[in-house]
Amino acid sequence: MNNETNGTLTPRQIVEDLLRQSPLDLGGAVPEQREIYRQMMQGLPAPQEVSTERTTIGGAPVVTHTPADASGGTVLLYLHGGGYTFGSANDSAALICAIARPARATVVSVDYRLAPEHPYPAALDDVIQVYRALRGDHHDATLCMVGESAGGGLVLSTLLALKEQHLPQPAAAVVLSPWLDHTPDDRPPNENQDLLVTAETLRRRSRDYLGSPSALPTAADTLNADLSGLAPLHIQAGSSEFLLTDALRLADRAAAAHVPVELHIGARMQHVFQNFLGLLPEADAAVRAAGDFLAAHRPAQRTR
Amino acid sequence: MNNETNGTLTPRQIVEDLLRQSPLDLGGAVPEQREIYRQMMQGLPAPQEVSTERTTIGGAPVVTHTPADASGGTVLLYLHGGGYTFGSANDSAALICAIARPARATVVSVDYRLAPEHPYPAALDDVIQVYRALRGDHHDATLCMVGESAGGGLVLSTLLALKEQHLPQPAAAVVLSPWLDHTPDDRPPNENQDLLVTAETLRRRSRDYLGSPSALPTAADTLNADLSGLAPLHIQAGSSEFLLTDALRLADRAAAAHVPVELHIGARMQHVFQNFLGLLPEADAAVRAAGDFLAAHRPAQRTR
Repeated sequence: MNNETNGTLTPRQIVEDLLRQSPLDLGGAVPEQREIYRQMMQGLPAPQEVSTERTTIGGAPVVTHTPADASGGTVLLYLHGGGYTFGSANDSAALICAIARPARATVVSVDYRLAPEHPYPAALDDVIQVYRALRGDHHDATLCMVGESAGGGLVLSTLLALKEQHLPQPAAAVVLSPWLDHTPDDRPPNENQDLLVTAETLRRRSRDYLGSPSALPTAADTLNADLSGLAPLHIQAGSSEFLLTDALRLADRAAAAHVPVELHIGARMQHVFQNFLGLLPEADAAVRAAGDFLAAHRPAQRTR
Repeated sequence: MNNETNGTLTPRQIVEDLLRQSPLDLGGAVPEQREIYRQMMQGLPAPQEVSTERTTIGGAPVVTHTPADASGGTVLLYLHGGGYTFGSANDSAALICAIARPARATVVSVDYRLAPEHPYPAALDDVIQVYRALRGDHHDATLCMVGESAGGGLVLSTLLALKEQHLPQPAAAVVLSPWLDHTPDDRPPNENQDLLVTAETLRRRSRDYLGSPSALPTAADTLNADLSGLAPLHIQAGSSEFLLTDALRLADRAAAAHVPVELHIGARMQHVFQNFLGLLPEADAAVRAAGDFLAAHRPAQRTR
């Protein structure tokens, strides 16, 4: 698998070169980078045999992906990434549909409001509205949540808000490269291994999302919150990520709070490497692990 | 699933009562407790449709379990638990055969020499002898390792010793409730959640295994070792375990060293809860996850 010594590029090196040459700067000026992010996401392959529809659920715009073999028994509520400032419900459709496959789930991807125009808690409010509406409309279905990057942080914020509001948790939640910590300089230096995210990236996007509060809101301070009673968690990250410690600390905190936890680390993988499924064997393995986790939580816990 | 409020015992409560009433004291006097441990292990169900044989590999006594549907393509080298002082190659046969099933593997369980009669590095030497011999005899097979409790620590010691000796790593390794840290008082207090293992248990068994060295031998100081280049790791523990932090710290250290890592935490589970498969749903889920991990590492990396 490793051809680093004989001149042929490995899949990992192809991806790294792609990221190095990309004009994307996740810490850059919002209007330009929002457009670049959109184009990059559009360049990813579309899912096959899936019918996609724009609609509104609980007052919030969503995109639904219904795979041809969906059973209707499981709904995946999906929260896209993009540092709370970029991205849309159209993103990562192939990835999320691949994760949905083993559970034969339908996907509902939320176009939550973005910062800086709509700072915290606008995105969280949108997600909770959709969650409540799904609970009402699909009361026989199993509801699961999946989020990547900032969307992973938003999944955790949602689980904490649901607990606070005495609403039932989803059956299970998957977070890919979650961004959880909004305290700058809490992470060990990454020695330029991460080709997408730096301390400065996070500082800027954090300011857009949260402003400069004297204290973090509880639902945004997920790594210091009491995680007891949260849904079973499946956490993924790449070992070359600056956000690796967010994933590891979440696993530690959740385990100590007696939450069922799975952690899956892709060796030398970058931020949200799962989007390169079909190209990186590590992405394929990670997508399979996430899908199996959701499928395993399907029959036991059903929504009421 | 949870009947704690209506008077019926949950499977977890049945297991906890069993452990509370058990005469086993893992920190107790060796001859008596060795016998009690043997009887407890004999009380576990035997695997079905498996042919079991006593033999010698690389000069060390082993027990082989060959399931009826074994392909011969994968060999699982299994290291039993028991604080380096109790236990035998006959232990946990049903558990290890269940883990072996998805990979259609044959199991080789090592009767490594026990402390205090045979302190470090006797057990490690035995395991490495068996590993070398298996590499020679089954050079077409994929070799994987599985260990529980002290056997999990011994798996890590073996991987480190193999690296030091420039021998190839196994294709993958699974450690269940691994005991890794021999420094007393390094762990947070467990508030009596662990019904089998205490700080005093570990202190006594550590003294039997390592004596009172001024410095830990490198291969026994697994959490401080350089883990880079080690085989992909699948780590399991229960969240009620005193040894939970050993599992979490191993995941952290291995991820930081770019080792592929999976971590699986059973909520409110005890030390090596996987032995209660068929009774605890959490044990069934954990056994399935470990088996799937080994099966996934079968075709890609083969021994030479």
